[in-house]
Amino acid sequence: MALLVCVTGRDNSKLIAGLRESLPDTDIREWPQTGDLAEIEFVLAWNAPESLWQQLPNLKVVQSFGAGVDGIPLAALPSGVQVCRIVDPALADDMAEYVLGHVLAHKLRLSLYYQQQQHQVWRPKRACSGRRVGILGLGQLGQVAATKLRQNGFEVLGWSRSEKKIPGINTFWGQAQLTRFASQCDYLICLLPLTAQTRGILDGSLFEAMPTQGVLINVARGAHLNEADLLHALDTEQIAAATLDVFASEPVEPEHAFWQHPKITMTPHVAALTSLRTAMAQIVSNMQAMQKGEPLSHCVDISLGY
Amino acid sequence: MALLVCVTGRDNSKLIAGLRESLPDTDIREWPQTGDLAEIEFVLAWNAPESLWQQLPNLKVVQSFGAGVDGIPLAALPSGVQVCRIVDPALADDMAEYVLGHVLAHKLRLSLYYQQQQHQVWRPKRACSGRRVGILGLGQLGQVAATKLRQNGFEVLGWSRSEKKIPGINTFWGQAQLTRFASQCDYLICLLPLTAQTRGILDGSLFEAMPTQGVLINVARGAHLNEADLLHALDTEQIAAATLDVFASEPVEPEHAFWQHPKITMTPHVAALTSLRTAMAQIVSNMQAMQKGEPLSHCVDISLGY
Ligand SMILES: NC(=O)c1ccc[n+]([C@@H]2O[C@H](COP(=O)([O-])OP(=O)(O)OC[C@H]3O[C@@H](n4cnc5c(N)ncnc54)[C@H](OP(=O)(O)O)[C@@H]3O)[C@@H](O)[C@H]2O)c1
Ligand SMILES: NC(=O)c1ccc[n+]([C@@H]2O[C@H](COP(=O)([O-])OP(=O)(O)OC[C@H]3O[C@@H](n4cnc5c(N)ncnc54)[C@H](OP(=O)(O)O)[C@@H]3O)[C@@H](O)[C@H]2O)c1
Repeated sequence: MALLVCVTGRDNSKLIAGLRESLPDTDIREWPQTGDLAEIEFVLAWNAPESLWQQLPNLKVVQSFGAGVDGIPLAALPSGVQVCRIVDPALADDMAEYVLGHVLAHKLRLSLYYQQQQHQVWRPKRACSGRRVGILGLGQLGQVAATKLRQNGFEVLGWSRSEKKIPGINTFWGQAQLTRFASQCDYLICLLPLTAQTRGILDGSLFEAMPTQGVLINVARGAHLNEADLLHALDTEQIAAATLDVFASEPVEPEHAFWQHPKITMTPHVAALTSLRTAMAQIVSNMQAMQKGEPLSHCVDISLGY
Repeated sequence: MALLVCVTGRDNSKLIAGLRESLPDTDIREWPQTGDLAEIEFVLAWNAPESLWQQLPNLKVVQSFGAGVDGIPLAALPSGVQVCRIVDPALADDMAEYVLGHVLAHKLRLSLYYQQQQHQVWRPKRACSGRRVGILGLGQLGQVAATKLRQNGFEVLGWSRSEKKIPGINTFWGQAQLTRFASQCDYLICLLPLTAQTRGILDGSLFEAMPTQGVLINVARGAHLNEADLLHALDTEQIAAATLDVFASEPVEPEHAFWQHPKITMTPHVAALTSLRTAMAQIVSNMQAMQKGEPLSHCVDISLGY
């Protein structure tokens, strides 16, 4: 029985050393040094190559190295394989702080004043008055952000897949209520997981439903957004501005139209970073649970995709 | 008995119409059409010319048209004249929102990312970790800002003239404790009134006391700041950055060194704007109190200067 770390695009030396220390009796391997693939039962994955998944006859658990599982082809996995993700309360706090900070940045017109400062322009304007914030996705991250925004005097609306009643939040659910929800949002925050149902959900019809002073903040995944529709919505004043932390392709290419767009604020996928310590504790605990045949934590529903 | 409105640099038509409606029996005049100066007992003032004050033999009340009285030469007024200011709870909320928004903007590195975006640079960095916010001035505005910052997980320190105990705030008072206070502030917010004691208080010795990652936010008055000392402190990395809403001379001249400074964020005196409705209600109420010989509201202590 072996654990394979297939986390690409980063230096995993601390991660591997930490796992080896906590799991001294486990055979821990790092991709692409996989050894005998038939021995691998547990894979820790992030941006793993698609081809990997068909080569593991005894795969039992795929542990995502992040909050999302959108990089794992759930439908293509053999039935019975469990897929887990990291759930980090500190990450939810960071995300809520990012969301509040960027909502306030728009409300206080920070990007306008940065632009004016560059041109030595002194032109006072009252802060924006909109206080309605809608959150797409009321999960681990969406609910913490909602609470923080409420505590700061914002009126909060939320949208989820299944029906939800949360005190103090005006809730909507399902595709049928999406337009009515969006029409009431001065700020629209995307905190959905990326699934077949949510891919491209931030599109022209959603922007059309939003108020013209509306601001989009996407902190979930780049593939939630139809980029051409966003540019069209901004250029035709369907909505007022957008803040984007995630992109279809990261790092964003230098020639991308977003960089120089005066209504777009970009940050380089920094809204909330998983803490290595929290992630390692959850990986170790799930590995041990698998070894003992006990239930794993933070498993996703394969049929729902999150 | 007459009320003189001497509020310069803005269109006062709504203000005068509102006062005339609420005070139908009062002789309301607008500077420079003063009429007989001996009839004027109540002056509503903002940026009034210095020469005015010596010409009013029967002056009883000077009502500032804002939260500060620094534009009124308190020491030069005949003894017995009362000076009042506007106290607006909504303004305190706006100020607290501005302060929180700009603290979060630094924490989340917004200005760095704006600069990177302009140069198509993708360079993720963790948010700043500092969470200690010190507030110079624990009055109407400082206390509301302190509460909001505490509610958002910041550790709050405060500095005032007289000794204060406020639950949850680490308080300091008097000149002797200023350096010890400043040395513990990742963010230092100036919300002091401008007086002889506080003019130029944001100077080299204060910046030297602050931590090198420290950020100055001045939302009180431009004259609190020694501008040359700030430039020196930023350029020698004594402190990390500054956000300024108020300036020695407003609007700031196009050739001022602050505009192009990469560590300075400027906003054009918009942190918190007095609501005309609230101001008018307080002016009317103080005018009526004077007429009836009743106590006025929100009078300042002439000897303290605020
Ligand atoms: N930018 C960053 O730095 C960063 C960091 C971490 C995570 N993220 C992203 O944030 C996402 C959300 O994380 P989380 O932990 O909050 O996820 P979660 O706990 O799984 O919550 C997902 C929420 O989305 C709702 N949802 C899912 N599919 C939906 C659909 N088709 N229609 C309507 N609502 C739907 C769910 O509805 P129900 O409540 O009805 O199930 C739930 O409320 C992650 O998947 C990841 O992509 C980004
Ligand atoms: N940027 C903007 O848009 C804007 C808008 C409104 C107001 N303002 C500025 O904000 C200032 C503060 O307003 P406020 O209503 O909060 O004033 P306030 O209620 O009079 O409070 C003043 C505070 O400063 C402290 N203080 C005064 N002199 C001091 C000294 N020498 N040493 C230490 N502490 C001293 C006072 O200490 P004690 O508690 O011991 O008396 C008090 O805590 C106004 O004067 C105005 O200049 C700016």
